[in-house]
Order: sequence, then structure tokens, then C-alpha cells
Amino acid sequence: MDLDDYRVRGAGGAKLSGYEPDDNGGLERSEAEAELPGLLARMQDLQERLYAERKRSLLLILQGRDASGKDGTIKHVAGGFNPLGTHVMAFKAPNELERAHDFLWRIHHHVPPAGHVAIFNRSHYEDILVPTVEKLLPKQVVEPRYDHIRRFEELLHDSGTCVLKFFLHISKDEQRERLQERLDTPEKHWKFDPHDLRARAAWDEFTAVYQQIFLRTSSDDAPWYVIPADRKWFRNYLVARIVVRALERMDLEYPKSPPGLAGTTIV
Amino acid sequence: MDLDDYRVRGAGGAKLSGYEPDDNGGLERSEAEAELPGLLARMQDLQERLYAERKRSLLLILQGRDASGKDGTIKHVAGGFNPLGTHVMAFKAPNELERAHDFLWRIHHHVPPAGHVAIFNRSHYEDILVPTVEKLLPKQVVEPRYDHIRRFEELLHDSGTCVLKFFLHISKDEQRERLQERLDTPEKHWKFDPHDLRARAAWDEFTAVYQQIFLRTSSDDAPWYVIPADRKWFRNYLVARIVVRALERMDLEYPKSPPGLAGTTIV
Repeated sequence: MDLDDYRVRGAGGAKLSGYEPDDNGGLERSEAEAELPGLLARMQDLQERLYAERKRSLLLILQGRDASGKDGTIKHVAGGFNPLGTHVMAFKAPNELERAHDFLWRIHHHVPPAGHVAIFNRSHYEDILVPTVEKLLPKQVVEPRYDHIRRFEELLHDSGTCVLKFFLHISKDEQRERLQERLDTPEKHWKFDPHDLRARAAWDEFTAVYQQIFLRTSSDDAPWYVIPADRKWFRNYLVARIVVRALERMDLEYPKSPPGLAGTTIV
Repeated sequence: MDLDDYRVRGAGGAKLSGYEPDDNGGLERSEAEAELPGLLARMQDLQERLYAERKRSLLLILQGRDASGKDGTIKHVAGGFNPLGTHVMAFKAPNELERAHDFLWRIHHHVPPAGHVAIFNRSHYEDILVPTVEKLLPKQVVEPRYDHIRRFEELLHDSGTCVLKFFLHISKDEQRERLQERLDTPEKHWKFDPHDLRARAAWDEFTAVYQQIFLRTSSDDAPWYVIPADRKWFRNYLVARIVVRALERMDLEYPKSPPGLAGTTIV
């Protein structure tokens, strides 16, 4: 399985029809589930080096339709990180103070400092998606945001932040099943938002905007990955693989010892 | 084993000599380690209810000498929480802007909002400990902080935050071994701070201030627990037990369903 098959590259790669939501990468569920604990342990080990080094950081951005599994990915993959040095931020609709600033103001506040990992559950991409689909803002306000985001992510990259962006790709059928299950399970009613049905009705409009986003904001420095998400086990496995690969490529090392430490005896 | 044996109550309970750092609660290591995964699963289940309810919150405060296991407790116990809804904050020496505010300003910013869990790795108690032991501030500045802290924690309690405070209690011998191990292991040098040796030399002074803190800030609403911490497995087990008990006592329930949800079919 080539992880880069899921990385958005070029105009062709930006088409969602090129990815199967129920793709399993040719793997059996049992294989992926057997491999996951080792991947998460490796991820935590690399995170400790990142934390010890305190020079670079990691930002994971999760986007996806309602019920596509953002929360589940955080629980099952990000749950493998040491919480010391990990910050999860769930961005909701901006409040009054946030709306009184540029759209990246509240985002910037939550980017990971050196040594840390941040996970965004939704992100600045909502500030393109929602205003476009719901026609809340004129085109001349939304259109420049693609460039603003690209430059913002370049700033993060240049400052030592590894940025990985994941779109959790589910089928319309699978979404129906998951939303229906929420409705049929009283203990999951709190997860249900009637607004989800409006977003579901605008399925194709969201697809079109996501494709614009992929086309215009996927780069080597801040790549988008399209994660087949109909099968939760494959989604978790694939995200973990991509995160581990990115951390391995950072060549993280424990910092050099300060002089004079070796040979010291504590009394 | 009675968890309340480890809760600080009254003047007698505030004496550290009343607690054995290598206490194991009469448990075998294998028993505690076998029970821990179930405790953490229960903890995460209760956390989901807290998150769904979005009315109350949980604040865990970890204090303890260097190498007493604050980071380890976060990794092995707080690591059992779902990172979505969990925020770990490690407080260091205050920076210039923070010192230009009252000592609770930076702390207040990080208390958990409704539905969330926050874990403080060190806390506002450092603002009593360090200035007292190192004589950095006059007594008339430090002394009122006990009352300020008590009122601040009352505010949190009254606003629905369950506050639990843990002192990780290690022996001086065990600390020597752990610091020595850091020195003898190049991959752990980054954890070693020469300042730790100064704090070790002031062992008894810190003990005296901690005892004042226990005496004056342990209450039913924001209790201190003294956690025997020479044995890491017992430390993890005991903290997990206390957290689970506190969450159980909150009677967390999934919120009532909004009217009209039941019977809805997604198309």
C-alpha cells in the first residue's frame, strides 16, 4: 500500500470521485487492527523525541462531513499520544469576538508551540466551506481566503510545524446509516444536530468546495490526504500510518546533553 | 482499601510523616496492574457523559517534587481520557506578562469549560511554594495567597467544576535514584534540570510549605490527596481510583433528547 495514493496531488487528485470511501487498501480488518497498537506506540515514542527536542511541532487538521469520524479518529488515533504536549481544539461557529477579527485570528492562537502536537477538529477550512455553501459572505470576501490559508500554513511550515490535513471521506449511504443510528440510540442523541440534515441536503455543494480546497491548498508543505472512512478500522490505521511516517521523516533526536552532566552523582 | 485514608483531613492529616511513600495499600502489583485498564475504560465512559452533558467539568491538579511522577501520571492515567475534551497544562515559571498580572490570572485562563477535563502539571500552588522556600517575595505578599486560592477554588466548585488535588509523595531515597537514573541515561538528560538539585537540598523547607498548603487549602470542595509515589504502579492505580470515584459521584447522565428526534428517518 502506497500512502501517497491518498495524498492529493495535482488537479486529478483533487477530484473526490477518484477515491473510494470503502477502500481498504487491500488489507484485512484483522491485519490493520493487529498493527495499530504498534503504530500508536511508535507514534508516542516519536512524540517524546519531538517534546524533548522542543524545536518543531506537529499540526493535524481533521475535516469531514458530519458523522465522517472526526471524533472517532481523535479518540482512537490521537488517543495514542501522551496528553502532556497534546492539544485538541474543536472549532465551532465563531463567536462575536472571533467574528470581529480576521478569520485566522482564533486559529493562530491554537497552533502548537515547539515540542507539541495540536489536533484541529474542524479548522479554518470551515471559513471557506460554510460561507460558500450557505452563501453567507460575498465571493470577494471568501475567495482571497484560499491564498490567506496557503500563506498562513507556509508560515507554520517555515517555523518548524509539520502540517498534515485529513479529509475523512465517507459515502452518502454510510452517513445516512450513522446519522440514523444516532437517532435510534437515545445515548447518542446529544451528538445529533438538526443542522446536519441541511448539510446532508447540500452534499454536492460541499463536494465542490472541498475539491476547490484540495486543488488550491494541497502542497508538499501542507498536504491534504483523502482518507477512505466508511470502514473505521481502515481510517484509523491509515491516519496512524501517515502520522508515523511524517514524524519519522522529521529525524527527531533527543537533544545533546549539556556539558558536565555525565558522571554527576546525586547525594 | 479506603480511598479516604489518602485524603487530607484536619491538622493531623496535613503531616507528611503520616503517609508512607512506599505504601501499596495492601495490594500486589499484579492486582493493581490487572485492574487499571478497566478503571481507565470506566473513566473514559464517565468522561463521555461529562462531555455530553456539558454542564460540569473536572480539574485535576498534580503537585510533587521533581521526579515524583507527575509526567508519568499524566501519561498513564490522564492518557486514558479521550483527548477530545481533555486539556493538559504544564505551568512553568511565569513570564513577564504573567508576572505583570495577579498570580491567578494565567491559571484562570486554563480552567476547564463545561464538559471538559483539565489536568494541571504544577499549578498556582507553585506561587506559594517557590516564593516561600526561595524567599523571593515578602511574607505579606505570599501569605494572602492561601485565602485567594481557597476562594478561587470555591468559585470553580460553585460553577460546577470538580477539583481534585494530588500530591505525589516520594521518599528522598527514591528521588535520588530517579534523578541519578536520568543522569546515567543520555536519552533522559533533557529531563534533568540542575535546579532540581537546589530544590532537593531544600527538601525539608518544601515539606514545611506543603504541609501549610494541605492544612489551609484542603476542603471537601477541593480536597488534597497524598499519593504514595515510590511505586509507580500504585500511584497510577490510586489516582485512577480517586478520579473514577469522583466522576461516579457526579451522577453524570446523557442529556435528555430534544423533542421530535425519536422516530425521525434520515433520507
